[in-house]
Amino acid sequence: MWTLDNLPDAQLASQYHFEPSKAWIDHVMHASVRLSVGCSGSFVSNTGLVMTNHHCAHECLAQLSSSQHDFVATGFLAQRPEEEVKCPDMALDRLDGITDVSAAVKHATAGLDGSAYHAKMTAVTADLTAKCEQGNADTHCELVDLYHGGEYQIYRYHHYSDVRLVFAPELAIASFGGDPDNFNYPRYDLDLSLMRAYENGKPAATPEFFPFNVQGAQAGEAVFVAGNPYSTQRELTMAQLDFQRRFVLVDAIARMSEMEGVMEQFSKISPEDARIAESHLFYIQNSLKVYKGWFETLDKPSVMAAKQADETRLRAYVASHPALAAQVGNPWADIEHAEDLNAALMPAYDAEERSTLGSELFGYARDLVRAAAERTKPNGERLPRYSDSRLTGLQEELFAKQPIYPQYEVTAMTVALTDLRAKLGPDNSYVQLVLGKESPEELANRLVTQSTLGDPAVRRQLWDGGMAAIQASQDPMIKLALAVDPAARAIRKRYEDEVTAPIQKATEKIAVARFAMSGTSVYPDATFTLRLSPGIIDGWREGDHQVAPYTDFAGVFARSTDADPFKLPASWEAAKASGRLNLNQRFDQVSTNDIIGGNSGSPLINRQAQVVGLVFDGNIHSIGGDFAYDPNDNRTVSVTSGAIIEALRHVYGADSIADELLRPVAQP
Amino acid sequence: MWTLDNLPDAQLASQYHFEPSKAWIDHVMHASVRLSVGCSGSFVSNTGLVMTNHHCAHECLAQLSSSQHDFVATGFLAQRPEEEVKCPDMALDRLDGITDVSAAVKHATAGLDGSAYHAKMTAVTADLTAKCEQGNADTHCELVDLYHGGEYQIYRYHHYSDVRLVFAPELAIASFGGDPDNFNYPRYDLDLSLMRAYENGKPAATPEFFPFNVQGAQAGEAVFVAGNPYSTQRELTMAQLDFQRRFVLVDAIARMSEMEGVMEQFSKISPEDARIAESHLFYIQNSLKVYKGWFETLDKPSVMAAKQADETRLRAYVASHPALAAQVGNPWADIEHAEDLNAALMPAYDAEERSTLGSELFGYARDLVRAAAERTKPNGERLPRYSDSRLTGLQEELFAKQPIYPQYEVTAMTVALTDLRAKLGPDNSYVQLVLGKESPEELANRLVTQSTLGDPAVRRQLWDGGMAAIQASQDPMIKLALAVDPAARAIRKRYEDEVTAPIQKATEKIAVARFAMSGTSVYPDATFTLRLSPGIIDGWREGDHQVAPYTDFAGVFARSTDADPFKLPASWEAAKASGRLNLNQRFDQVSTNDIIGGNSGSPLINRQAQVVGLVFDGNIHSIGGDFAYDPNDNRTVSVTSGAIIEALRHVYGADSIADELLRPVAQP
Repeated sequence: MWTLDNLPDAQLASQYHFEPSKAWIDHVMHASVRLSVGCSGSFVSNTGLVMTNHHCAHECLAQLSSSQHDFVATGFLAQRPEEEVKCPDMALDRLDGITDVSAAVKHATAGLDGSAYHAKMTAVTADLTAKCEQGNADTHCELVDLYHGGEYQIYRYHHYSDVRLVFAPELAIASFGGDPDNFNYPRYDLDLSLMRAYENGKPAATPEFFPFNVQGAQAGEAVFVAGNPYSTQRELTMAQLDFQRRFVLVDAIARMSEMEGVMEQFSKISPEDARIAESHLFYIQNSLKVYKGWFETLDKPSVMAAKQADETRLRAYVASHPALAAQVGNPWADIEHAEDLNAALMPAYDAEERSTLGSELFGYARDLVRAAAERTKPNGERLPRYSDSRLTGLQEELFAKQPIYPQYEVTAMTVALTDLRAKLGPDNSYVQLVLGKESPEELANRLVTQSTLGDPAVRRQLWDGGMAAIQASQDPMIKLALAVDPAARAIRKRYEDEVTAPIQKATEKIAVARFAMSGTSVYPDATFTLRLSPGIIDGWREGDHQVAPYTDFAGVFARSTDADPFKLPASWEAAKASGRLNLNQRFDQVSTNDIIGGNSGSPLINRQAQVVGLVFDGNIHSIGGDFAYDPNDNRTVSVTSGAIIEALRHVYGADSIADELLRPVAQP
Repeated sequence: MWTLDNLPDAQLASQYHFEPSKAWIDHVMHASVRLSVGCSGSFVSNTGLVMTNHHCAHECLAQLSSSQHDFVATGFLAQRPEEEVKCPDMALDRLDGITDVSAAVKHATAGLDGSAYHAKMTAVTADLTAKCEQGNADTHCELVDLYHGGEYQIYRYHHYSDVRLVFAPELAIASFGGDPDNFNYPRYDLDLSLMRAYENGKPAATPEFFPFNVQGAQAGEAVFVAGNPYSTQRELTMAQLDFQRRFVLVDAIARMSEMEGVMEQFSKISPEDARIAESHLFYIQNSLKVYKGWFETLDKPSVMAAKQADETRLRAYVASHPALAAQVGNPWADIEHAEDLNAALMPAYDAEERSTLGSELFGYARDLVRAAAERTKPNGERLPRYSDSRLTGLQEELFAKQPIYPQYEVTAMTVALTDLRAKLGPDNSYVQLVLGKESPEELANRLVTQSTLGDPAVRRQLWDGGMAAIQASQDPMIKLALAVDPAARAIRKRYEDEVTAPIQKATEKIAVARFAMSGTSVYPDATFTLRLSPGIIDGWREGDHQVAPYTDFAGVFARSTDADPFKLPASWEAAKASGRLNLNQRFDQVSTNDIIGGNSGSPLINRQAQVVGLVFDGNIHSIGGDFAYDPNDNRTVSVTSGAIIEALRHVYGADSIADELLRPVAQP
């Protein structure tokens, strides 16, 4: 997972026989995009066509749907440009440049601790990003912390806020096998969606894009994933790993499992409720597999022994270099102490500050209440979410015309309020402030039924009216958000001062030590920024058998049943019956690239920067990759480029899109 | 948790200033009972009156209820004997005597391993219990394994199969605070039910019983719990504890959390569905707290360090005694090996053999199919569940007139079938055998709708008809149970031979070593047999404050809200308003007795064998007691005897029952 300004030239040359030019690297940077929903994507034509996963367009498809039209189930196809429809809540960022600001950040925060450190960091971040953006609405800048404080860089993005849906297949083939097959392989999914970036009402001009190679990549061939892995935790100390295992993961597994049960039953009320719950259920079940995989990894003696050995080696290195030891002290002990506080504070911090009480409406209310207060402050003193560089995104989110489903809200909020009481206890003052003498269900019902925040116009009015409008509002969600805000801010400040800041400082010191030992010869933990991950097309050994790298179209027909999630859509049955569909076409494939959540929708490209696949998942062993990558069995799962073209032409009759993907172009 | 034939005389004398006579011990044995639902109880009058918890009568109350009468919610009171109603599926056992059979068992199984050992153990058990029962229907005998094979004893019980409900308060006060307060303290619950044992259609004569002491016990006073702790795991090896933590608990937490969500939503369909789901939800939420508490205990460095030290000490003792070492070998390594196999086999064993696919009907089907096959075999060769000594209980269970709720069955079965597929994978042969081309929901719907096993008469017919009737049955549950039985038996046999038997053998060897080191100076792990646990009335230190030992009636009124589970029943509000109720009456209390699940419903008695309380819970620290007892903060929670009398008289107007509890008697 290398940053594009620091590719491992020697390794690429020796292991992959590849020496990318500066032009190749720049081209990859400009043809790759990041989606606001937390996915990756790429430009695949010079007129703004963007390729990503179906599951990355899932929320958009759901938002465009209604009880009359369920685009998640039926798919979507714009045969002509005028049929392309704006996704209500979708934006793209294309990376334009990287500037190192390590010296400035480290100078500004030198010698600071706790709350002073945190305030200065917030101010420096706001200042540097504002300078980079220069008030340009199309420019979005972020301060990126690499190597946990080892380096700081400003990433400058071109921002596209008008993104329209072009094509999505039916969920039944995009996610064939559903939750049972998620993270599994062999796999048979067309997890594809195509969108188009618009500027000034017209398709954006995107001269830098990845052309399709319909032949795909052959077994053993070098392939590259350009995408934005969300975050990895490969540098955590033993104390941090223990904390995750003991205090975070089991609780998360319990919470998600409960929500899985709730949403499964909610889905049974009616087909419309099933449609409403569908994307939530996907998210829940996906998260569950991830948390379970993480827990297994962190409870596996071999993994923990390797982690311990790694930490012991680094600590020994520090101990044997007196100047370094004097500089960094014992940050491992500092983290241990902070994690003890973390265990004590986290339940309240999670419940009072990080949770939106299961309610989108309460989330709006909190944002409106906080934005009203924060926007009156100087940029550098605000909570990070309300700094100038993030206000555009926040407004896009707040004013998006997305439907609110009251019964869903009540259900999710009831669960969250019940869990709040269970976690903090019925005698806790925050719980009593929220619940009063009502039950979780009564309160959720009253708040959701009486709130008008579901209307974007009301939200805009409250935003524009500032604190006066907020104070005057009779909306019960606004009133609740106002009432709990002091307590929520207090626990947030305490948590940041006593847990976040000390860990950040200690982590920086460990990063200094690691830098002294290894320099940039290892890549930094993922930070939802653009990375290139090299690999080859290859299967793996699972227990007593070898898993082959490819599946084919014939396989999906052999494996289908009469019932979801193994029932094929009618379009596929018809395509097979017609004889048009090439059943020998390779469908999905696995490769050794090191990826993680956030890489969904990444293009899989060859040495010529041509698309040979579309990344949509990892195998079950990839989940532990958050903490450690194991080349023996960690695999990336992608749709082959050939399957995409074959399906567009012979299942969906979308020849114009297939033609656009295959338009001849000059190579970079 | 001492067995009654081996009380720690010295400890009782020094720590509790108590030297119980043989008569006292015999009296306690004969006044205590064990409930078939997995609870404890006691005779509290000479005419068969039995005291236990409301939550132990919960299933009975639910079975007697209908959409017209919800006795769980409204409570139950038989003012006259003829109003007492039989609990459909409830039986009692009173311990009559204990006989040591260690020599016989050890001789019979000497030198045997794996499958041969298992078969011989099954045969010996069947033989010894049959000899003890001598075909007497009122006598029930069990082979009890103490000290994990250190001692074997035959426990002979008097069996009462006609048990009638006398009194239960409303759930709202029996379980005031509901799931949020479960395992918490201070507490305000009247978790009481009264039943009566009948013989030959008349109240049973029970000259040995515990009279009530309405004053209760004072702070610091010695108190004793006589009850049947279900099981403890205090002698497990490190490999076994690791296995629990890594492979059992997190999976159980996830499964139970999902079911919690499912049942919460199921409850919202209608009040009748809420009534149907209520006792299941109680069980689920209670189990969840237990599993979470266990996980925390087994992931706590201090606990595991103490366990490791204990194991190291014992292994060192063995190593320094060559004769002992030669006799026991290295059972710890044997267990480690067996647990590796356990990790590999358990998913299939759980899914194919231990699960009833979430369905009561499938549970009936499996029992009918298996009983038909097993009953044709000699007693000693049957699966233990179908041995002669257990056939009476099995028939009571199978022919009980308890309602089946189809929609509940479909819901629970759908979840179980979905989990089955998730756990073993859609390509697994057992999964395909069960599901075919149907979805979990379709299959569950079809099976439940078409099965007639909900009718006890049909079940009796199939039982009486034997294998011919089973083979001829067109019932789809029977057909499924028949179809999967070979696979289920195969995985069971493999699991018993490769996991259960080796662990049992190794555990016995460890018991030999522990015996050599400590003798019977420590008590054996709990085995759902009668134990006496001494303690004193005492609070504990929680963080920065001291928790007082008693609560009072005033406290429950102060803490009540307008909403479940903190809403008081009308009867209590009325009693308060009338001025009759003594608000200073002590309500619940905590004491240092070492108890565990199965102790629910145990009497708390004083040195005079008088009832001073009714055990119904432990505090949150008691959950870890399965693995280790910590006298600092592990506490038993009970209702005071005074609260029971006061509530019977002044809330429920049940003076005749209060009088029966206070009838003057001669002391033992």
